Amino acid sequence: MKRITLGSQSPRRRELLALLDYDFTIEVREIEEIFPDDLEANEVAEYLAKLKASAFSDIDENQIIITADTVVLLDDEILGKPKDKAEAKRMLTSLSNRSHVVVSGVCIKSKYKTSSFSSKTKVFFKELKNSEIDYYINTYKPFDKAGSYGIQEWIGAIGITKIEGSYFNVVGLPIHQLNDQLLTGSF
Amino acid sequence: MKRITLGSQSPRRRELLALLDYDFTIEVREIEEIFPDDLEANEVAEYLAKLKASAFSDIDENQIIITADTVVLLDDEILGKPKDKAEAKRMLTSLSNRSHVVVSGVCIKSKYKTSSFSSKTKVFFKELKNSEIDYYINTYKPFDKAGSYGIQEWIGAIGITKIEGSYFNVVGLPIHQLNDQLLTGSF
Repeated sequence: MKRITLGSQSPRRRELLALLDYDFTIEVREIEEIFPDDLEANEVAEYLAKLKASAFSDIDENQIIITADTVVLLDDEILGKPKDKAEAKRMLTSLSNRSHVVVSGVCIKSKYKTSSFSSKTKVFFKELKNSEIDYYINTYKPFDKAGSYGIQEWIGAIGITKIEGSYFNVVGLPIHQLNDQLLTGSF
Repeated sequence: MKRITLGSQSPRRRELLALLDYDFTIEVREIEEIFPDDLEANEVAEYLAKLKASAFSDIDENQIIITADTVVLLDDEILGKPKDKAEAKRMLTSLSNRSHVVVSGVCIKSKYKTSSFSSKTKVFFKELKNSEIDYYINTYKPFDKAGSYGIQEWIGAIGITKIEGSYFNVVGLPIHQLNDQLLTGSF
């Protein structure tokens, strides 16, 4: 297999890719994460994954780049990373006592081929108490997390009653599909 | 809150309980894990969790004991821990390309009250190749795992396409329900 480079600074994605038992290195290239206004909300993650891959234009023939983006959708509204405590509280309050959708988009790129896909998981939160939301925000500071939560943290442990789809996709990378693509995609 | 004792030697349950941010200690008491022949398969995990709790008869009034058991059900057949590679291979082959159910049972016990419950999650495996099953068994040696797999290991990463229910329940402890019980159960 070719040398894999993960183009993500997320420690969670690093852990997920490591589950697949491939050797890989990390290289992050900064891009401005902007997308067209008229893009469907559920296509944004895949669009941004492709945008991140576009920053790697100098790939050698033995290299594969993997980039990804994860978006939290409440109906058709995208919940991004909260800029402060108040916004995190608004987001978590809006996720309470209902389901939402997490979309992770992935782009795999070699010198010869670029391919992308996305995966959806439905996530159900119980009714969250104000005190639970406050404790979580103050203790875990989820300002680097889309939708203001990490499923693998305290709020996910006490608050998420069930999911429909892939758990790893919610954490940030749909790894079973990524593995299928790496094995069969002829990169 | 009272002092919590987790009556389990599973490192996975230890990590899951730690997600709830309570202090706790570990104390394992050996019991023989036997259950009545006529017990419904989906009641076995909760029965064994209660049996494990019954070994703690000398609880003081400031203590809470938590015990648990996890069972993998294929239709109505219980898949236990495999005794060797051949049995692990038979189990994983039987789980390939279909869904099965994971049931975790929990018992919470104080000096004044004993309460138990169980939770089910449906798990879907893709069609596993022989080479994938062999690699997993040889590399990860899943002989301590009911059903011969850990969802948080390589085989879960490459093979599980989706779940319906709680991910943490498949790992070994339905922690959102456990937390609800600890907070509202008057132990």
